[in-house]
Amino acid sequence: MEKLSRNSRVVAITKSLIENPNKVIGLNKFSDLLNAAKSTISEDIVIVREVLEKLHMGRVETISGAAGGIRFINGISEENKDNFGEQLCELLRDPSRIVPGNFIYMTDLMYNPQIIGKAGVILSEYLGKEKVDYVVTVETKGIPLAYEVAKNLGVELVIARRDNNKVTEGPTVTINYVSGSSGKIQQMSLSKKSLKKESRCIFVDDFLKGGGTAKGINDLLKEFECELVGIGVLVDHTGAETKLVENYYSIIDLKNVDKNGVVDLQPSTNKNI
Amino acid sequence: MEKLSRNSRVVAITKSLIENPNKVIGLNKFSDLLNAAKSTISEDIVIVREVLEKLHMGRVETISGAAGGIRFINGISEENKDNFGEQLCELLRDPSRIVPGNFIYMTDLMYNPQIIGKAGVILSEYLGKEKVDYVVTVETKGIPLAYEVAKNLGVELVIARRDNNKVTEGPTVTINYVSGSSGKIQQMSLSKKSLKKESRCIFVDDFLKGGGTAKGINDLLKEFECELVGIGVLVDHTGAETKLVENYYSIIDLKNVDKNGVVDLQPSTNKNI
Repeated sequence: MEKLSRNSRVVAITKSLIENPNKVIGLNKFSDLLNAAKSTISEDIVIVREVLEKLHMGRVETISGAAGGIRFINGISEENKDNFGEQLCELLRDPSRIVPGNFIYMTDLMYNPQIIGKAGVILSEYLGKEKVDYVVTVETKGIPLAYEVAKNLGVELVIARRDNNKVTEGPTVTINYVSGSSGKIQQMSLSKKSLKKESRCIFVDDFLKGGGTAKGINDLLKEFECELVGIGVLVDHTGAETKLVENYYSIIDLKNVDKNGVVDLQPSTNKNI
Repeated sequence: MEKLSRNSRVVAITKSLIENPNKVIGLNKFSDLLNAAKSTISEDIVIVREVLEKLHMGRVETISGAAGGIRFINGISEENKDNFGEQLCELLRDPSRIVPGNFIYMTDLMYNPQIIGKAGVILSEYLGKEKVDYVVTVETKGIPLAYEVAKNLGVELVIARRDNNKVTEGPTVTINYVSGSSGKIQQMSLSKKSLKKESRCIFVDDFLKGGGTAKGINDLLKEFECELVGIGVLVDHTGAETKLVENYYSIIDLKNVDKNGVVDLQPSTNKNI
């Protein structure tokens, strides 16, 4: 391939990094792709790193050693994070979202890539401070968010199922757990193939009320000899009377939906961390 | 903000485009973000466009008029697409994937962002040729793939549920459908709030055998006065005796799993389109 200009090389490097967050990419890969010396690529990377940091668009880390290279950690500025929280609150306050039983309809938001893409970056910044092997969720509403967090952290997603009769899952482990808010007994299952022993997992979901599901996930992970090292949700129902878990991150604090359907919420303070 | 060099501006423009595929971004936005004249930004965009096209990393389209700007359409080279298909076949041939009943365990692949990210680009290239308003799937295994296709096409995802007793969904529409392979009657539900009338939808799933689910989605969409304009799956079970749908895209053609667990598959030829 013909030689490319520096302008062109930095575009290609940026695209490769952004599509592979938290994955170490050797400089050789860029050298081959762009037909340039490693020293030239190193200079290109300095430019990419500087502008992404300046514009609060994430960080580029250098990993030294034989298996070394560079790694992109996605990020968002404090200002954009605050704006995102406010916008989300505004959307959730819309009275037309109230459905019978005084619940807030938020499925469209949980499945909107523009919204969940940003929420995934925010939660992965919080939860990626520790070493993480898997992101775990339980079907269905939290799946896109958990997927985005897994993608940003460069790890696999694992989804617990509500029923355990799926022939394509192979042998499964099923646990019973008690919903923290309703006290109802529920089940969740996970294929025995889904997790490696002694893995460090985080749990991501759409909504945390009593924390029964999070506690259930904790119990399920123990069956796999795995550890729950973090929890992140889009909405924390802070108005819930009991919480079966502590130390979790959220993006929105929901205090209450009153009987007239007026929604009391705000961007999370994450004070309990 | 201080002025940035061209090298730095093209990095920032590339990141913004890649994170918002198929969304029109006005040049003003870049002008403001990067403190540069629109004419300068236009020159930057030419560079970004040229290198992405040269390296088969996608296209940058210009939309003229008052609501105009530029739009990034993600893409992958034919060579990378072929390599991806071959690698996926290799992974699926692994005998340790066979679970009781002679099914192939592929859940880990369906939830792996590195794999599903690429598969999503490939399916969105096929399915994005027509105007699309929503990507529709049915829980659970196809959700990450459907989400990636929706993200690449810049539209919302809609997920039909297997049970219709979710209080947070509001009023729902439920249909019965017949599995194309087993003949078993099943249900799926969708919140009445999830789709706007007269929308054009594509259906994305992990696996297509008899096509009963795809036909069920077609029936469900009719209840919303919406149209099914395309179907894409990761694996097409070409060995299935009957197909209730035609004209769909797939990435892998699975012919057969014999009684010794030997898997006969290949990258899809998509001959039936």
